[in-house]
Amino acid sequence: MPKLDPTTDEFRAAGHRLIDWIGDYFERIDDYPVLPHVQPGDVERRFDAAPVADGKPYDALLREFEEKIIPGVTHWNHPSFFAYFAITGSQAGVLGELLSAGLNLNGMVWKTSPSVTELETVTLRWLRDALGLPDNLFGIINDTASINSFLALAAAREAAGLDVRRRGLSGLPPLKIYCSEHAHSSIEKAAIALGLGIDGAVKIASDDRYRMRADLLEQAIARDRAAGAVPIAVAATVGTTSTGSIDPLPEIGPLAAREKLWLHVDASYAGPAGIVPELRWIWEGIEHADSITLNPHKWLFTPVDCSVLYTRNPHALRSAFALGEVPPYLTLTDTAEINYMDFGLQLGRRFRALKLWMILEHYGIERLRGVIRDHVAMAARLAEEIGKRDDLELLAPQMLSLVVFRKKGGDEETMAAFERLNATGELFVSNTRLRGRLGIRVAIGNGATEWRHVARILDLA
Amino acid sequence: MPKLDPTTDEFRAAGHRLIDWIGDYFERIDDYPVLPHVQPGDVERRFDAAPVADGKPYDALLREFEEKIIPGVTHWNHPSFFAYFAITGSQAGVLGELLSAGLNLNGMVWKTSPSVTELETVTLRWLRDALGLPDNLFGIINDTASINSFLALAAAREAAGLDVRRRGLSGLPPLKIYCSEHAHSSIEKAAIALGLGIDGAVKIASDDRYRMRADLLEQAIARDRAAGAVPIAVAATVGTTSTGSIDPLPEIGPLAAREKLWLHVDASYAGPAGIVPELRWIWEGIEHADSITLNPHKWLFTPVDCSVLYTRNPHALRSAFALGEVPPYLTLTDTAEINYMDFGLQLGRRFRALKLWMILEHYGIERLRGVIRDHVAMAARLAEEIGKRDDLELLAPQMLSLVVFRKKGGDEETMAAFERLNATGELFVSNTRLRGRLGIRVAIGNGATEWRHVARILDLA
Repeated sequence: MPKLDPTTDEFRAAGHRLIDWIGDYFERIDDYPVLPHVQPGDVERRFDAAPVADGKPYDALLREFEEKIIPGVTHWNHPSFFAYFAITGSQAGVLGELLSAGLNLNGMVWKTSPSVTELETVTLRWLRDALGLPDNLFGIINDTASINSFLALAAAREAAGLDVRRRGLSGLPPLKIYCSEHAHSSIEKAAIALGLGIDGAVKIASDDRYRMRADLLEQAIARDRAAGAVPIAVAATVGTTSTGSIDPLPEIGPLAAREKLWLHVDASYAGPAGIVPELRWIWEGIEHADSITLNPHKWLFTPVDCSVLYTRNPHALRSAFALGEVPPYLTLTDTAEINYMDFGLQLGRRFRALKLWMILEHYGIERLRGVIRDHVAMAARLAEEIGKRDDLELLAPQMLSLVVFRKKGGDEETMAAFERLNATGELFVSNTRLRGRLGIRVAIGNGATEWRHVARILDLA
Repeated sequence: MPKLDPTTDEFRAAGHRLIDWIGDYFERIDDYPVLPHVQPGDVERRFDAAPVADGKPYDALLREFEEKIIPGVTHWNHPSFFAYFAITGSQAGVLGELLSAGLNLNGMVWKTSPSVTELETVTLRWLRDALGLPDNLFGIINDTASINSFLALAAAREAAGLDVRRRGLSGLPPLKIYCSEHAHSSIEKAAIALGLGIDGAVKIASDDRYRMRADLLEQAIARDRAAGAVPIAVAATVGTTSTGSIDPLPEIGPLAAREKLWLHVDASYAGPAGIVPELRWIWEGIEHADSITLNPHKWLFTPVDCSVLYTRNPHALRSAFALGEVPPYLTLTDTAEINYMDFGLQLGRRFRALKLWMILEHYGIERLRGVIRDHVAMAARLAEEIGKRDDLELLAPQMLSLVVFRKKGGDEETMAAFERLNATGELFVSNTRLRGRLGIRVAIGNGATEWRHVARILDLA
């Protein structure tokens, strides 16, 4: 008899209990405080110094889970979680993850589980079409947008024709990537990782609506070229973290093409809005993009992690990472059409397409559209109500499901309101600073959020 | 009412069905063919060109899952899966993933869910002690060993004192990383990613037991220094992919220290064996390591993905990636002790510690030890039986749970045996090439594997 799991009896009993626990959790999520009342170390000290020698039954572990772990949880599933980008774990997504964990597949190459590779291809084609993206895009799922932007910029580095993959950067002039001052920190991290350094990520100032200024981008490229540097890519953002602003792709795209730069578009947050036909204006100029990343785990009801990278140039992505010599233990796969491991840094690839398939198919595109429309409508209503108030004002135009506002009285009053809001435990907002002014940042993105949750912000601000 | 998931009724019903489906799957896994009988495109063409507009009930999706997806699955959970490194998804691990998906937390910083950060700290301390590793190691969980080796080598690059994080590699002499010719391909991929190029990953020849030769390492370092290059790291392997060989850390460690090189140890596969006291010889010389990666998702019964990185120099890891200026929306966390996002490339971090906690606590260390002991014992018995055969011989010493053998007749006969074994669908082995000779590679690592599964290899070879 196998020693690890001799029977499935305990598993079945505990599994049913956990399904019901999660069902109850979804139903009662409103009753939890969004933010836990713990100090650093509080959770840690509830645990023994070592795990047990002889094991504990699942019931005991579920009790410990409730008593020791849950009190230290910030509830991302809470309908009043408005910080960062609010995300939402759907029920279909949970079931997809459950099946994926049960199978425990690794789709590093086609042969290691054809269904992992092919369902990824199928769902990403569905998603691409549902989002209204160009039909010449190749897609791959990775864990995070940080990785996807990094991979895209690695492809850009390789596409510069300097044989960096073989020879490295030594002896080359400095390479430059351009992004807006509002680009996500992952662009800077990618520049560090790729050996370009923080100095290799050139920040371009934004206009009065926090969009990258194409004229300043053009000047920066010219200045760097004159100084002997080699521009390789522009990383534009569709939906910046601070304000949701959208860089002007119709201007940046042709500029990047003229300058022969790779155009990467970080649409991690805003991209999923493309499934709503009347929101597809976010894609204006997207036909110029060499690569696009967007996160189903942000605004498409998919449990973390699931981030998608699309590119019209999979060859460059592949040549940036494909091994010089594939080791024999990986060469079983001559007949494969796609071996996704060749398109990234990670060899191991869990079956993330399964939850995406479950979500797209169980809810159907229309229901997903309805929820995203609701989020945007609630954000618009919040912005409108703020406009009516004597003491509040928008600090940036409302964009999609994101609203940034402040107390008219200034930073001190705004900080007080921010702290008051989060201190209630009822809701969780984040903050940002724009042109030196502090703002309260409200991101709506949870599948259970209703107007009454959002309205509390107006009560408490 | 929330539009996405108005009730939990369907979820509960489907969840119970899926738990039982997985229970049945574990019980009947022996009846599935390990390798599917599909050609590229077979799975893909079973799906429609677009997802549905109005959604399908879970029952219909479970049927599609069984009819369209399962027939294209390579069953990593199968007890006769002996290819790559056999892995195993335990029942406790599945339950941990289920809970993690239900909560859908993102532990990017402490505040975004204190329990995610602190349970990671707790379980990695437990694991470190259970493995018999030095107690001065700081741990972090990431998705894969590819990422962890990449991060460790990024820390090495930063620790070289050339301010690469800020200025990049331009203008610097070539940097060099050293590894054995049997190192995993992820080391070469890391060198590419980091901007060192394939040329930056110097392969050192191995001895008659496939271990990196320290004398040749020393010569290579001296040669590169003389040529003006800057050696920065040695990536040693404890448990190579091809043969399970262990590089001689007692020689390499002091050499790396003398040369002021970062010593990274890739123990992805073999590391978990350290929980068995009598196998801790694998760690001889480990006190010299600056960083170590090992995979609970390989040989510690954890569903993919869960790879651990330990380092005695977290400051270097942090300084390799911590942002120049932390954006305001991430600065809520002044009181935090550890913000794991500072120690890696990825900002998003799902709650992987939960499944590790569940596994360590439910099975207890003794049961886990028992299973790993069995795997090693079965490998030893397989090697012994091969030794008794006239037609077979070992191509490398049996190491831990890994056996590489061949037909004495040569490559052609070996390839025929290899193809015969996999063609049955009963089991799945991989192959490798050592000093030009083809070998059949048998990795034992599944929680349900018994001797009768292994014995079939002898019948069919």
